[in-house]
Amino acid sequence: MKTIGIVGGMGPEATCDLYLKIIRNTPADKDQDHIRTIIDSNPKIPDRTAFILGQGPDPRPLLIETARNVERAGASFLVLPCNTAHYFHKDVQDAVGIPVLHMMEEVARYLKGKVELVGILATSGTLKTGLYEKALSEAGIRSLVPSGEDQEKVMEAIYSVKAGKLQHGRELILEQGRKLAHRGAQAVIAGCTEIPLILKQGDLDVEVVDATEILAKACVRLALEGM
Amino acid sequence: MKTIGIVGGMGPEATCDLYLKIIRNTPADKDQDHIRTIIDSNPKIPDRTAFILGQGPDPRPLLIETARNVERAGASFLVLPCNTAHYFHKDVQDAVGIPVLHMMEEVARYLKGKVELVGILATSGTLKTGLYEKALSEAGIRSLVPSGEDQEKVMEAIYSVKAGKLQHGRELILEQGRKLAHRGAQAVIAGCTEIPLILKQGDLDVEVVDATEILAKACVRLALEGM
Repeated sequence: MKTIGIVGGMGPEATCDLYLKIIRNTPADKDQDHIRTIIDSNPKIPDRTAFILGQGPDPRPLLIETARNVERAGASFLVLPCNTAHYFHKDVQDAVGIPVLHMMEEVARYLKGKVELVGILATSGTLKTGLYEKALSEAGIRSLVPSGEDQEKVMEAIYSVKAGKLQHGRELILEQGRKLAHRGAQAVIAGCTEIPLILKQGDLDVEVVDATEILAKACVRLALEGM
Repeated sequence: MKTIGIVGGMGPEATCDLYLKIIRNTPADKDQDHIRTIIDSNPKIPDRTAFILGQGPDPRPLLIETARNVERAGASFLVLPCNTAHYFHKDVQDAVGIPVLHMMEEVARYLKGKVELVGILATSGTLKTGLYEKALSEAGIRSLVPSGEDQEKVMEAIYSVKAGKLQHGRELILEQGRKLAHRGAQAVIAGCTEIPLILKQGDLDVEVVDATEILAKACVRLALEGM
């Protein structure tokens, strides 16, 4: 059995959410059946979206330092429970000697053949990088994103979660999810790790695709069965 | 700001519960306000209760190895989110060069002067060691524990949580909590890290003392303000 390594803290609640989903997705009858998991929750890593939008310091030095710390502590592979941080996926992968899972590729693999048009709720940073669009398009799936003003509401929802104001965030994100479904999305990706905390399966008329849950399942599969 | 180190996996859900309680008890408006937290969730550490009752392998070698791993990864102090593991508190403290918080002492400090008689819901391992009785008695508090057959129900509840059967565990533990309150306990300690997952404040006519919550608050205090 491999050891999961989580490069976390982006934000802390999202890291905790991934960790719980790993536990819940592990077939286990007792403590000892579970998978060893090493987490460095380092919330000091600068805001990813702010940097991508040219408004903040570079998160890469601390992101890489944290990834190396988790590798040194014994992880067999790494995951980044932050969608936006995947903009730096290659930088992290180049800095360590173990595999780094890729959230968007896992989500695209999950959706391939299931839908043709999918909505994306993510940070403006993630959208600007085109990470989801690229992975989805390679899987033959078209994507929809909120328009300018609506995307600002998505960002407000995400930062509300980070500040612990979950109810306010939930109201904002529900409206944006409904708009995407109304525009024809056959599923909506909760494509920022804060979003599954406020948008659950059953909240919309279409499937809510929890990218954190998909990443958790990929971790368990890889830890128990190999690549 | 210090770095919290969690020697976890005993069990994994309890570690996740402590981690979330640390996050929720940290005054924060954004990711960067949170406390760096390093977790080695190592569920392979042998069952503590089984060893104390003479029915299983010694958890100390792996417990100490895990504690040292968290220290090496940069923790400023350690916590053990497992009540029963505190039987080995001195072994862990002797093996590392950083402080190891003590759950029972934190709980006793919290209850001192508030109650005279308290009920304890804990593993048979924890009860056999007398860890709570000792810390409470030093704080001038008498304690009550379930009788033989009732204690077996407490153990069944705890192992149900570890196996993911939370509802069954909850029914069992509610009955035992009520019995302790009926016998005169002015508060009931949820003194196994699995118990706060199934027994919440308001479930009993008396206060439910969540040892994990108290430990989380101690972590935040120490990380933000020093010893």
